Amino acid sequence: MKIDVIISADDIKKEKIKDKSVVVIDMLRATSVITTAIYNGCISVIPVLTVEEAFEIANSNNNRNKYILGGERNAVKIDRFDFSNSPLEYTRDVVKGKELIMTTTNGTRAIKNSNGARNIIIASMLNAKAAAQKLVEINNDITIVNAGTKGQFSMDDFICSGYIIDNIIKLTDTCELTDVSTTARYIYNENPNIVSFIKNANHYKVIEKLNLHKDLVYCCQKDIMDIVPEYRDNKITL
Amino acid sequence: MKIDVIISADDIKKEKIKDKSVVVIDMLRATSVITTAIYNGCISVIPVLTVEEAFEIANSNNNRNKYILGGERNAVKIDRFDFSNSPLEYTRDVVKGKELIMTTTNGTRAIKNSNGARNIIIASMLNAKAAAQKLVEINNDITIVNAGTKGQFSMDDFICSGYIIDNIIKLTDTCELTDVSTTARYIYNENPNIVSFIKNANHYKVIEKLNLHKDLVYCCQKDIMDIVPEYRDNKITL
Repeated sequence: MKIDVIISADDIKKEKIKDKSVVVIDMLRATSVITTAIYNGCISVIPVLTVEEAFEIANSNNNRNKYILGGERNAVKIDRFDFSNSPLEYTRDVVKGKELIMTTTNGTRAIKNSNGARNIIIASMLNAKAAAQKLVEINNDITIVNAGTKGQFSMDDFICSGYIIDNIIKLTDTCELTDVSTTARYIYNENPNIVSFIKNANHYKVIEKLNLHKDLVYCCQKDIMDIVPEYRDNKITL
Repeated sequence: MKIDVIISADDIKKEKIKDKSVVVIDMLRATSVITTAIYNGCISVIPVLTVEEAFEIANSNNNRNKYILGGERNAVKIDRFDFSNSPLEYTRDVVKGKELIMTTTNGTRAIKNSNGARNIIIASMLNAKAAAQKLVEINNDITIVNAGTKGQFSMDDFICSGYIIDNIIKLTDTCELTDVSTTARYIYNENPNIVSFIKNANHYKVIEKLNLHKDLVYCCQKDIMDIVPEYRDNKITL
């Protein structure tokens, strides 16, 4: 089982994801939001690239009440959306039985750009161990897609990849790592509490500046959810 | 002064190198060969993409004696070439006064693909400190291009980038690092002898298997040459 890592949504190449089991990570914060929403009873998450597309779906078939709109541009809530990209907003009473239409700068793009993979699973620190377990069960070559930040490598997604790789290796001895996978795992092993490393990430600093420290604390928790959302036919479900 | 890193020759995007000071690194072994050859009195190195192009130049203007042909495919010498991609072959008595026509799998491609930059300088562990000094003097935004291995991230080039970044930061306090630059520097700082890290690199293992351990020892030496070769008008010179 080979494990490779793509360092940003802009660096996805078709041949690297074709027929692979892809894991999309945008731990700060899109895939933490998705994991949380699904865990809390959201029926599905519909990732879209544009704000216009989000409104179009929400207003289709006269059933606006069925949907919630969530996401961000430049890390802040989108005008006329219901919620921002803070996972803390996606509580059970808000999401249960709803469909979440979501658009973010990096995460939703990474998910949509992974079309062509055999499976596309959604991971974050919150469900990393469950994701690793599922990948070992699927037993296919793995490409971990880091959403990154605005087309750039992001330290937070990279160390999260390392944590997932470390979990996979503990479950099976048949792994073959590329150099980038070895490096991600190395960084996690040197920083098992992860904050010591990601506090130097540019995107972490941006979120901290927006007074969203609670989001950071939340997103850095390991394995508090044992679910693995999967993207298929334009929707993310369990 | 911003510092960014591109992780392989296949990941070069025009907008990331346009008007930047680009540093090309293929420490195992193309840029170690180039640095060594120029240090030993080679007039210039002409990087070319194909074996055919190399022979064409060597056989032009009836002056075959002026040139030496060097490089590799799959890490071994090319048929009818004078030398392989081992820096140890490029001694003074062999290269002095000659022009080296060179083609390799990763390094020469990284150099040619960097066209559009303001400067393209050639670096390796052998001349890292001199390269850093030169970049600080130029005082322009920097993009470090890792040749990588067959389009993939390579741990050896990445830690070498980290060493150069660390040297730059010691010379100036005006640096702004992207996350990938911060990560490269972090890895160097955790592994200042570098071999502890790169012994796990896939390409390192390939070279070791070819009984080229002496090349690895040679290429991992720091700052034994205080020259900075530069690529301009299709040639690398001092």
